[in-house]
Amino acid sequence: MKILVTNDDGIDSAGIAALADALREIAEVTVVAPSEEQSAVGHGITMKYPLRVFNYQKNGSFFGYAVEGTPADCVKMGIRNIMGESPDLVISGINHGSNTAINIIYSGTVSAAREAAIMDVPAIAISVTSHEAKDFKYAGKVAIMVAQKVIKYGLPRGTLVNVNVPNFPENEIAGVLVTEQSKAKWDDIYEKRTDPFGKDYYWLTGKLVEIENELNTDQFAIKNKFVSVTPIHFDLTDYDTFEKMKSWNIEKNFNEKAH
Amino acid sequence: MKILVTNDDGIDSAGIAALADALREIAEVTVVAPSEEQSAVGHGITMKYPLRVFNYQKNGSFFGYAVEGTPADCVKMGIRNIMGESPDLVISGINHGSNTAINIIYSGTVSAAREAAIMDVPAIAISVTSHEAKDFKYAGKVAIMVAQKVIKYGLPRGTLVNVNVPNFPENEIAGVLVTEQSKAKWDDIYEKRTDPFGKDYYWLTGKLVEIENELNTDQFAIKNKFVSVTPIHFDLTDYDTFEKMKSWNIEKNFNEKAH
Repeated sequence: MKILVTNDDGIDSAGIAALADALREIAEVTVVAPSEEQSAVGHGITMKYPLRVFNYQKNGSFFGYAVEGTPADCVKMGIRNIMGESPDLVISGINHGSNTAINIIYSGTVSAAREAAIMDVPAIAISVTSHEAKDFKYAGKVAIMVAQKVIKYGLPRGTLVNVNVPNFPENEIAGVLVTEQSKAKWDDIYEKRTDPFGKDYYWLTGKLVEIENELNTDQFAIKNKFVSVTPIHFDLTDYDTFEKMKSWNIEKNFNEKAH
Repeated sequence: MKILVTNDDGIDSAGIAALADALREIAEVTVVAPSEEQSAVGHGITMKYPLRVFNYQKNGSFFGYAVEGTPADCVKMGIRNIMGESPDLVISGINHGSNTAINIIYSGTVSAAREAAIMDVPAIAISVTSHEAKDFKYAGKVAIMVAQKVIKYGLPRGTLVNVNVPNFPENEIAGVLVTEQSKAKWDDIYEKRTDPFGKDYYWLTGKLVEIENELNTDQFAIKNKFVSVTPIHFDLTDYDTFEKMKSWNIEKNFNEKAH
């Protein structure tokens, strides 16, 4: 089995090292990751500038390929040029910090997995729920478990799996839940500061506003110490609204006006 | 009516000027847009660096606010700090180049509108299908038509409207279609070059591979000279796979192993 490993925290992060180490037990692992941290870059790709690729050493031996680009760039470059073939699986992570609810939209980690799914490669994004996480061993085990299930059962074209692992010791984990994306989102606050030269600048802060009484969501799972496993896709059409918009008569009205 | 206008081509682009001019006929318009081009940045937001905001002049008078950030940053900053209230509508564009099929994922234009929808503000993304588009008058008319329909009929929470206008004279436009997102996606090719110092670099190129016999999609519409109007959302859960994954027994198996 061949697995491409990437992330958004950068090739030198502890999470990707733990993930690559864990997966080498079950597969031939190729690491292609951003040369610098790319958190919250969403599904950006690099088109205005060319990409460069470097060999990255760790503890004196070759660890993987560092790309001066986004997580999605790494997946495209990894599959098209570095591997030159589709791997059996792409796994992105282990991210430092949760990727649940609306954060899925902003996440570079999830976007990398989504890029793989766009390229018809089964893909998993995996995160530990704390930015201060130090121990990724249990998350590594979860990655192997989910990877084996994905290989065994397969995924429909265009579907990827988003996994969040509570930052607790293994013996405190309540179990695993298959979940939906929570509707929780950020209440943004821009903190205004003034630089030493009298000019204003703004830091994005805020808090994630929970939805009460949500069950079966990724947020519900991690708050209750469950590993959350969410199938997500990128068919963005809102089919309910598609049907309703037929009664907007924009097709008829506008055509009549136009002709 | 108050409308916040943004884009991803940058505050100095011709498309946003045309959009703001058109919308001033029906609303009080506030322009908040990136100070530099931000195409294909996806739904990135700026968290590692602070944001700065500048007044931007055009032809000697105030045109809008330039933000040193992404399109999604502009919407957050525009609503939270510059307007200090939710507008009736956010419109992103007029983009130079189509945003159909998988490009919706990469698009800064669409992500700006999606950020508005996340903030519960009705939103529209509008694009003209050629990067060489010079005349945005017809697209401006379409923006007004769709804006008025959105205000009249409303949109469900979390839904936005993605509009693509063929780059043809108004009298050659066939009409308007309500469409789905096409499944077409890119066949990527990295073009390798060598810099004057002997080091390799790569340009992302490729072509959009059409899906044969697709009807009612955004790609189908624009290829047949129809204006395409697609309702999209950001509930990414794949509910079909959610049900199927229940039979993967990861919930049961893993819990048993864990305890």
